[in-house]
Amino acid sequence: MTAAGGPDFVPPSERIAVFDNDGTLWSEQPIYTQVAFALDRVRALEPQHPEWIDRQPFKGVLSGDLSTVSASGEQGLLELIAATHANTTTDEFAGIIRDWIATARHPSTGRLYTDMTYRPMVELLDYLRRHGFKTFVLSGGGVEFMRPWVEEAYGIPAKQVIGSRAKLRFEYRAGGPVLLRLPAIDLVDDKAGKPVGIQQVIGRRPIAAFGNSDGDFEMLEWTTAGPGPHLGVLVHHTDAEREWAYDRTSPVGALARGLDEAGDRGWIVADMKRDWNVIFSPQRPAVARHQE
Amino acid sequence: MTAAGGPDFVPPSERIAVFDNDGTLWSEQPIYTQVAFALDRVRALEPQHPEWIDRQPFKGVLSGDLSTVSASGEQGLLELIAATHANTTTDEFAGIIRDWIATARHPSTGRLYTDMTYRPMVELLDYLRRHGFKTFVLSGGGVEFMRPWVEEAYGIPAKQVIGSRAKLRFEYRAGGPVLLRLPAIDLVDDKAGKPVGIQQVIGRRPIAAFGNSDGDFEMLEWTTAGPGPHLGVLVHHTDAEREWAYDRTSPVGALARGLDEAGDRGWIVADMKRDWNVIFSPQRPAVARHQE
Repeated sequence: MTAAGGPDFVPPSERIAVFDNDGTLWSEQPIYTQVAFALDRVRALEPQHPEWIDRQPFKGVLSGDLSTVSASGEQGLLELIAATHANTTTDEFAGIIRDWIATARHPSTGRLYTDMTYRPMVELLDYLRRHGFKTFVLSGGGVEFMRPWVEEAYGIPAKQVIGSRAKLRFEYRAGGPVLLRLPAIDLVDDKAGKPVGIQQVIGRRPIAAFGNSDGDFEMLEWTTAGPGPHLGVLVHHTDAEREWAYDRTSPVGALARGLDEAGDRGWIVADMKRDWNVIFSPQRPAVARHQE
Repeated sequence: MTAAGGPDFVPPSERIAVFDNDGTLWSEQPIYTQVAFALDRVRALEPQHPEWIDRQPFKGVLSGDLSTVSASGEQGLLELIAATHANTTTDEFAGIIRDWIATARHPSTGRLYTDMTYRPMVELLDYLRRHGFKTFVLSGGGVEFMRPWVEEAYGIPAKQVIGSRAKLRFEYRAGGPVLLRLPAIDLVDDKAGKPVGIQQVIGRRPIAAFGNSDGDFEMLEWTTAGPGPHLGVLVHHTDAEREWAYDRTSPVGALARGLDEAGDRGWIVADMKRDWNVIFSPQRPAVARHQE
């Protein structure tokens, strides 16, 4: 594919690879990292919100009773996200994320979340970049939640991060203009939203896509429907000892249709237990040499 | 700014420059090029739309009476845009634009529109890229209208084009999945929409911004409000002989507040008549050596 004049040659400008984040580049169990952030943020903001103590889903978070949080359903989750993600400026929010990701630890492994990125995938990102690819994160998670740390973790610059996003409003404060994060969704970058996010930001069909759940199905479908060489890969979580084992019925990262159709569609299924010698990245890997 | 260790050093990842398109990188008189495309497209689609012959604003376009088109106002323009820009797939639309831009000619100069790009600006884009900048187009015009030709015209890849955009829908056709352009606006990338577009796509504040109208005011304001070295430049259309002379009262590309406040804000006003030895790029300049 990189051999100029060869039958499968792809010019560098078309070497675009997209990667889902949760469950593809780092762990997503037992809850998405961004949900862990939202829960921590409710606890941090409690002193400014005395009204939360008697109101679900905040009450459940503050009392440690996450079953009531789950019971509050999608409406409850949206309330949590709005209360913890909105009504800050983009600069303030980036600072909050930077502080949190530098110190928060995973509940069962005790590792920093950025130390739960997958070493084979970080090596793959680096390998693709060495061969002239631009690498993009394409996540259902929030774009502003990822940007502050993906550059160091994956070697992917902020402008190559696509995710769900809040509506923004340009407004004036005493210190100058700001962009305010509003409590309203502008794009849900999951399922059929992923090809939309690709087109909006990249404007060109990728030739390689890497995912792990049925939320990534349309991303792989769009990528591998293109003309010329292309690659679709699903990471299958099969290692209950070193990571987690889950697929069809998991409340987080369910993978069913992808498993059923991967063979017919020519997608590769990477079996974490069988195929990966090492799961997690060493602490703070030096991956930043070959960016983009 | 590029001297490592110097007081004004900016790391390459922060060297981001944004350029308005219409009136900043190419001519916008007597009507925006995208409007010229829409008018041509109505004429091309006429055989499939017999109902247009009696209906404004289409009737005016088809009979060459543009005064009635103007009289149809914003509603008429939106109808024209929807009829000529929507209900095609993104791939089909890119092909339509590619065909049109390769042959359509400016009504008064007779040049290809891509030969009405400004040579000093194309040289500036190249100069900035030689010094480690990433260059972005940031236009009120449609992102999918620009992407098919900006790479050749400006050396800017599709993924660094930000513009107004239609809502997209991922759907299935007999030949495979497509992204359908819907007759609904997703972002108007003008005025306060420009900082929003910057944040959505780049995720980082630029340090240099180049515009020509009050639609670029917030883009320059946001860029030059950042900490560290920054640059804001307005192109002032002052040359009625070699191009056009217009500013405060022009129906296209009005520039009033920018002229009034440039001095206080430290923005540079480039006077086309006084400062530019050459206006237009030669036919098909070889600018693609230093991309991005």
